[in-house]
Amino acid sequence: MSNSPRILRKKTGNFLEDFRLGQVFRHKGGKTVTEGLFTTFTEFAMTTNPLAKNARYARAHGFEGLVCPPGLVMLVAFSQTVEDVSENARANLEYIDMRFGAPVYVGDTLEVETKVLGVRVSGSRPNLGIVHVQSTARKNVGAADEAVVATWQRKVQVYKQDPTAKVDEGEVEPDEVACSLWLPPYDAARDYRSLAHLSNRDTYYEDLEPGTRIEHSRGRTMTSEHIHLTAILDNTSQVHCNQFMIDLDPKQYVGGELIIFGGIPFVLCLGLSCPDVGDNALGDLLYRTGRHTAPLFAGDTVFAATEILGKRELPGRPDVGVVDTRLLGHKFVRAEGEKHEDAPEGWKKLAIFELERALVVKRRSHYA
Amino acid sequence: MSNSPRILRKKTGNFLEDFRLGQVFRHKGGKTVTEGLFTTFTEFAMTTNPLAKNARYARAHGFEGLVCPPGLVMLVAFSQTVEDVSENARANLEYIDMRFGAPVYVGDTLEVETKVLGVRVSGSRPNLGIVHVQSTARKNVGAADEAVVATWQRKVQVYKQDPTAKVDEGEVEPDEVACSLWLPPYDAARDYRSLAHLSNRDTYYEDLEPGTRIEHSRGRTMTSEHIHLTAILDNTSQVHCNQFMIDLDPKQYVGGELIIFGGIPFVLCLGLSCPDVGDNALGDLLYRTGRHTAPLFAGDTVFAATEILGKRELPGRPDVGVVDTRLLGHKFVRAEGEKHEDAPEGWKKLAIFELERALVVKRRSHYA
Amino acid sequence: MSNSPRILRKKTGNFLEDFRLGQVFRHKGGKTVTEGLFTTFTEFAMTTNPLAKNARYARAHGFEGLVCPPGLVMLVAFSQTVEDVSENARANLEYIDMRFGAPVYVGDTLEVETKVLGVRVSGSRPNLGIVHVQSTARKNVGAADEAVVATWQRKVQVYKQDPTAKVDEGEVEPDEVACSLWLPPYDAARDYRSLAHLSNRDTYYEDLEPGTRIEHSRGRTMTSEHIHLTAILDNTSQVHCNQFMIDLDPKQYVGGELIIFGGIPFVLCLGLSCPDVGDNALGDLLYRTGRHTAPLFAGDTVFAATEILGKRELPGRPDVGVVDTRLLGHKFVRAEGEKHEDAPEGWKKLAIFELERALVVKRRSHYA
Repeated sequence: MSNSPRILRKKTGNFLEDFRLGQVFRHKGGKTVTEGLFTTFTEFAMTTNPLAKNARYARAHGFEGLVCPPGLVMLVAFSQTVEDVSENARANLEYIDMRFGAPVYVGDTLEVETKVLGVRVSGSRPNLGIVHVQSTARKNVGAADEAVVATWQRKVQVYKQDPTAKVDEGEVEPDEVACSLWLPPYDAARDYRSLAHLSNRDTYYEDLEPGTRIEHSRGRTMTSEHIHLTAILDNTSQVHCNQFMIDLDPKQYVGGELIIFGGIPFVLCLGLSCPDVGDNALGDLLYRTGRHTAPLFAGDTVFAATEILGKRELPGRPDVGVVDTRLLGHKFVRAEGEKHEDAPEGWKKLAIFELERALVVKRRSHYA
Repeated sequence: MSNSPRILRKKTGNFLEDFRLGQVFRHKGGKTVTEGLFTTFTEFAMTTNPLAKNARYARAHGFEGLVCPPGLVMLVAFSQTVEDVSENARANLEYIDMRFGAPVYVGDTLEVETKVLGVRVSGSRPNLGIVHVQSTARKNVGAADEAVVATWQRKVQVYKQDPTAKVDEGEVEPDEVACSLWLPPYDAARDYRSLAHLSNRDTYYEDLEPGTRIEHSRGRTMTSEHIHLTAILDNTSQVHCNQFMIDLDPKQYVGGELIIFGGIPFVLCLGLSCPDVGDNALGDLLYRTGRHTAPLFAGDTVFAATEILGKRELPGRPDVGVVDTRLLGHKFVRAEGEKHEDAPEGWKKLAIFELERALVVKRRSHYA
Repeated sequence: MSNSPRILRKKTGNFLEDFRLGQVFRHKGGKTVTEGLFTTFTEFAMTTNPLAKNARYARAHGFEGLVCPPGLVMLVAFSQTVEDVSENARANLEYIDMRFGAPVYVGDTLEVETKVLGVRVSGSRPNLGIVHVQSTARKNVGAADEAVVATWQRKVQVYKQDPTAKVDEGEVEPDEVACSLWLPPYDAARDYRSLAHLSNRDTYYEDLEPGTRIEHSRGRTMTSEHIHLTAILDNTSQVHCNQFMIDLDPKQYVGGELIIFGGIPFVLCLGLSCPDVGDNALGDLLYRTGRHTAPLFAGDTVFAATEILGKRELPGRPDVGVVDTRLLGHKFVRAEGEKHEDAPEGWKKLAIFELERALVVKRRSHYA
């Protein structure tokens, strides 16, 4: 090769000025859920729902086998959108109307599309703006069991590359996407009760009382494992895995260090809450809205709490009910010499995540 | 939700005063062995026995496919018992009469039951006591191939929650549990010799001499990976994964830092010993007794040795024999200025684990 | 056991004086590729080629399912040779004529043989020498689909154990090994274009221009995860996983700390280059030569670049072409007060890896 090759540096991901209102991305890659991926993320998140751990239990409930928990579906599907939507993002601002559809099993292949619903330049920081998108994940495209498995909107804060570039500002309507939670039919002939010892006894629909806040008892310390986990998900955002980039200009980045991909605390909070509210869920119906309120770094310990907001019937399904909750994640940070009501002396509680979450929960009357 | 919700903090796990003599726990969850779990733990432990690595070799020996090594069966089954038995434990004191039964393959689902055999309050530390339990793991409950895969007793040091609570002290007899190692039949028509190059040449029954102590040559440094590994196993004990809890009161915890789950050094010692004693084993027959003698922390390097205690026939199986061994794990700790016979200058050898272990080992006369 | 057992310390691996010219090792173990192994290493390396991620895409191209990327085949096959060839190595010097054959799928079992082609004592360091070997990996030995999946030569710097021992110096000819890349037949009736959105649009044969150098935009920071990754591969070399050994005599080891197994930066560079040159490859044809030029340690961030050296027809296959490249890996090290042309101020670029690599790449004319 000659001494002076032509140098190419390809741009990865889109900057604010690259987005077009109404534009649709058919994301690259796609991802087949292997048993390796399934185990890594189901167990990492400390999920306790036996549907995701015990194939006998899952089949006895009418599923084909181990069921991907909603957090895993979200992680895999969401990550497919990162390169096109948020590789050049500063932060993910909000999740909106995230709904789940068909169950995802080991061996299913997920592919995702995203439509640009809105673009807006920041008033105060002209090198930034907000992109609003709607994404839909399908499994097994072209096969007999092709189905929508999840759809959601999100708003993300994206950098401009060229401060002078024109931006296609505006907002368009989201598409109507048919996506509602598939539930196995209730069959009174099945002996559900013989399996009842495998899930928690006190987390049926009847047990969850509106007006209570459950402080989930376990915590989980995150380590630099997050770099590996994020790579496994195909999340290519450099703020999660490129320490050199951070070292060059720490002040440019949130916290001045590698930030943990938001999907990690998202599913970890779901997992930490599982023994208290999710153990007898047949699925998650809807995440109405959610957001990260503080970043997470290696070394932080994640805790979670759930507020039970309300309960309601699910039409046509007397065996289950819908529980509306707010899932809250937090960590503690040092606050030498300070006293805070909800933290040990010398520490301060810091909210990191919140999610309005509706679950479909089995009734004891029908299952135990 | 109102500003003053009712706060719930659920208790997780049992404290000393919660255990009832003769009580039986049917543990929650259960766990299907995926290829993800299989690979993570088989390879992590540096197992070299081809039965767990090479499906062609395993099938040629009469197994259905890759065989879960005993350490993996133990890790999965044991972890199922943690929430009920040892989530509030200070330390695991002793393993007793651990026996293996049917082989465990990828796709098998394990479920575990535990009976409380004994409860005793500590004389010197009234906030602690000892719980003695017997656990049995079955695979594929309700299916044609349902079988016991392992049974064991253990003694564990558990905290009291309420120092004034009454404790149901006493001891009851263990159950008789039919659990003996399944071995594939020896078939002289099979060409075992064509596979002999795939395992070590000098670890047949004929090679292992009572009265020798084999210092296994490899060491393995543990990192903070242990937090992730422990979570993957569903082990919910907070002393392994909640750094914040430790930071609040380090003196309350062994070593003042996150302690590595005992199952990790257990299987790591099995793995480190494998090339020298386990490469030609068809299975582990019995762990008569075992205990952790010092804690393991991230950064420590684990070494192991095996003493060959004796050899004996296995009735009806002239192709194999039983080798009785003592497996010993150790690490080195800094000892500035000190000289110890069995350690480099400035270091001290610290025993961390011991296990009386009987293996069923192939005879060269029949296999090579 | 008596107080004075006979102590055995088995030698692991071979030292320089143990190698015999022309000797053939049939390596122990063998390894079945599970979904756990597949996911861990495919995703760790940030591979973006959908053949390794999306089973629908892979089958539509004529493969049986997800295809192991060449880096994974190399890691698994290479690691099988470590105990016999390089457990006592100081460094791996060179990869030569590495060719790939049949595709490797999940469930395939790889077994490897190695022939000793050359042995030479170092002139300047008599406790070291160079061993030259040729290794060949087969899948599913004895089954209908038995096939060679890879073959390669390498030169490795190995310690002598006994400085006075005689060494069997010399060089013999390599074997002719039939191993050429299997490609699925091109079938004009297939609707390849309907899948074209799943891979990068600008990495077809037509897009890759000789005389260009592509600086791949992403970096990946390695952590102590490398210890776990190396163990999962059965790589038993202690310089990757035994911190205690390093602590005893740091000056004896490259860099004075645990060195990352060379296979890790090898596949990581392949992965980092994938979105720019590998996304539309059907396979890697040949690695003519490759070498590690500096060690990698935990905390380093790996970057890569690819020089396009040339392009050529592949006889009989007008749908693809061969692209000859040079893959270059580098990291940055602190250089306080220094200015270097190709690095930010205060840093110096350090080449860590180079590989002459020929890929078989799809033509847009036939696939998109």
